[in-house]
Amino acid sequence: MRRYAILAPGMFASRSAKTAHGVIAYSDDPTVAVIDPDHAGRRVRDVLPYLASDAPIVATIAEASRFRPTSLLVGVAPVGGALPPSWRRSIVLALEAGLEVVSGLHDELSRDPEFVAAAERGGSSLWDVRTPPPVPLFSGRAYDVEARVVLTVGSDCAVGKMTASLELTRAARERGEHARFVATGQTGIMIAGSGIAVDRVIGDFAPGAAEQLVVQNAQHADLLFVEGQGGINHPAYGPVTLSLLYGAAPDALVLVHLATRTEIEDYGTPILSYRALIRMYEGLCSTVKPANVVGIALNTFGLDGEAARDAIDEAQAATMLPVDDVVRFGPHALYDAIAPGIATKTRPLSASRMTV
Amino acid sequence: MRRYAILAPGMFASRSAKTAHGVIAYSDDPTVAVIDPDHAGRRVRDVLPYLASDAPIVATIAEASRFRPTSLLVGVAPVGGALPPSWRRSIVLALEAGLEVVSGLHDELSRDPEFVAAAERGGSSLWDVRTPPPVPLFSGRAYDVEARVVLTVGSDCAVGKMTASLELTRAARERGEHARFVATGQTGIMIAGSGIAVDRVIGDFAPGAAEQLVVQNAQHADLLFVEGQGGINHPAYGPVTLSLLYGAAPDALVLVHLATRTEIEDYGTPILSYRALIRMYEGLCSTVKPANVVGIALNTFGLDGEAARDAIDEAQAATMLPVDDVVRFGPHALYDAIAPGIATKTRPLSASRMTV
Repeated sequence: MRRYAILAPGMFASRSAKTAHGVIAYSDDPTVAVIDPDHAGRRVRDVLPYLASDAPIVATIAEASRFRPTSLLVGVAPVGGALPPSWRRSIVLALEAGLEVVSGLHDELSRDPEFVAAAERGGSSLWDVRTPPPVPLFSGRAYDVEARVVLTVGSDCAVGKMTASLELTRAARERGEHARFVATGQTGIMIAGSGIAVDRVIGDFAPGAAEQLVVQNAQHADLLFVEGQGGINHPAYGPVTLSLLYGAAPDALVLVHLATRTEIEDYGTPILSYRALIRMYEGLCSTVKPANVVGIALNTFGLDGEAARDAIDEAQAATMLPVDDVVRFGPHALYDAIAPGIATKTRPLSASRMTV
Repeated sequence: MRRYAILAPGMFASRSAKTAHGVIAYSDDPTVAVIDPDHAGRRVRDVLPYLASDAPIVATIAEASRFRPTSLLVGVAPVGGALPPSWRRSIVLALEAGLEVVSGLHDELSRDPEFVAAAERGGSSLWDVRTPPPVPLFSGRAYDVEARVVLTVGSDCAVGKMTASLELTRAARERGEHARFVATGQTGIMIAGSGIAVDRVIGDFAPGAAEQLVVQNAQHADLLFVEGQGGINHPAYGPVTLSLLYGAAPDALVLVHLATRTEIEDYGTPILSYRALIRMYEGLCSTVKPANVVGIALNTFGLDGEAARDAIDEAQAATMLPVDDVVRFGPHALYDAIAPGIATKTRPLSASRMTV
C-alpha cells in the first residue's frame, strides 16, 4: 500500500497532470498531498471539484512529508523535457527522506547518478513506470488461467479504454466479484501500482508481456479487466493492440469509442464503424482463441445529454449490444448487461483438436 | 560493396549455418572465403553443391585474408551461447587487420570491450545486424513514395517469405525492372547488406521501422519486395506481422505458405486456409491502405514432384490466384503472372476524403 505525494509544480490544474488526476480518482492507494505552489493552502476538491478529494495542496516536499507519504509520484512532464532544478531538488529530498520515487517521465530517473546516490543515502528506490521489466516470449500459459479475462478494445487511442476498464472493475467489485484492473500503460500502472507499459516492450515480446500480466494478476482475482491500447486499424499502434489481443488471451471484449471521434488522431485514417470494428476484433480472435465483443463503453464526452442518449441508442441499434457511457451514467448498468457475456472462459484453437 | 569471409568453424555444413548459406546463395556481395577447419582445402560447391559457389574453404582467418575480404561475417551461433576462445581470436584478428565484423549473434559484439579495442587498433568497425537503429514513429511518409511496394505475408514463421521476396526480386530484375529486396530480419539483412530486424524494435516504433526501410529503399528502386515476418494469427509474432503490413504500406501482397505445415510452430494454433488468410490480410489492409493478395508462393519443400504439383493446383483452385513454387520451378512464371497485379500504387484511406 502506497501513500502518494504528487509532484505537480505549477501544473496540477492543467491537462498535463492527467496522470495525477487519474491516480487521485482511481488508485486504491491514497494521495495524501499534492505539491504545487500555485495552489498551496487549498485542497484538491477546491481546484478540481470532480476529483472529490480532500488531499491538501502544499508548496514543498518538506510540507508534504507531514502527511506521511511513502512515495513521491512525478505525474507531470516538465515543459521542454528537461527536469527544472527545483524538481530535481524535490526528488533528491524525497529520496533522502526514504520516499520511493515513482516516475512516468520518458527519461529514466533510475539512470541518473544524482538520484541513484540520493536513493542510496535514503535507503529508498526509484520506479520508472515506463521501463518494462524483462519479459519472456508468449508461451500459451495465459490459456490456463482460471480467471476470466475481459479486454477493452478501442476505435483509436485516447478514447477511454483505461477508464472503462477501471469503472467496470469497480462495478464488478460492488457486485461481489473478486475483480482486478490490469494496467498496460503509464497512467494505468500508477493507478494500479503495478503493470507493464506494453508499447515500450520489444515487438517480439509484447504478447509475452501481456501474458505475464494476466498470469500474475490471475493469482489474485477471478475476473480481470485488462486495459487495452491503441486501435486495430491505427497505422502506428495497431500492432500493440494486437499484442494485447493475442497475449492477454481474453475471454470477452468490451469495445470503447469516443462518440465525437471520426478519424484516427494524427493520421486521418477513418474510424471504423461499430460493426466493422467488431468484425475485425472478433475475426482476429477467432483465429487464435475466440472472444466476442459483449458490450460497448461509449464515451460521450463533449456531447450534451440528449446527444449522448442519441449516440448510445444509435450504437445499440447498429450492434444489438449493451451500450452505455460508464462515466456519465456510472458503470453498473453496462456491467450488469455484460455480466452474462463474461461469465465463462473460452478455449484456444488447437490444430490437433481440429483434425481429431 | 562487401567481400565476405564467413566464419563458421565446424558448422558450415550444418543447418546452423543457414544464414551463411543464404548470404552465399542470394547476396550481391560475394563470399570470397569460408573459415571452417573441418572442410579446409575444399570449395563451397564440394560441400554444398546447391550453393554453386567456387569460394574456397580455409582453416584460419589468416588464410582467408589472402582472398581480400572486406568483412568477416559471423553467420552461425556458437553451441551453448558463449563465444569459444578460438572464435574470439579470429574476430580480434579480423578487426586488427582492418576488416569490418558483421554479426548476427544475440550478444552484441559492439558492446564487448575486447572487440571495441581491436576495432580501434585496426580502424575497423562492428555491425551487430540484430540491433535496430533509432527509428521514428510511423508518420505516413511511406504513403508518398513512388516505388511500388510488394510485401510477402505468411501462414507462419519460417515458411519461405524471405526466399520468395529474394526470388521475385531476381525475376523482376531479369525482366528489366529496377527492383530491390528490403530486409526485415537477420539473414535478410546480411544478404541485402542493410535493413532492420523489425522484431527487435520497441512495439510502438515497429511500423516506423518498416516505413523508414521503405522510404530509404524507394530512393534507389521502382519496385520493392519487402521481406515479411511471422503470420497474422501467430500468437507471439502476429503483431510484428501487422507492423510490416501497416508500416511498409504495401500496394500488393504475396502470400507464402509451406505446403506441409498444418499448425503454427510451437503453439498448435491451426494454420488458416488460403481463403481465410487472404480475407484476414486484405481485410486489415482495407482499413488503412488497400492491398490485395496477387499471388501465392507455395513452398513445396518435402513433397515429391507430383505432390508438389497437386498442392499448387489445389491452392490455385481454392483462390483463383497465380500459384507457384519459386524455388522448385524458378520465380519467372509467378513473377510474370503477378506483374499486372503489382503495376500500380494504392492510396491510403482518408477520413476527410470519405466525408467529402
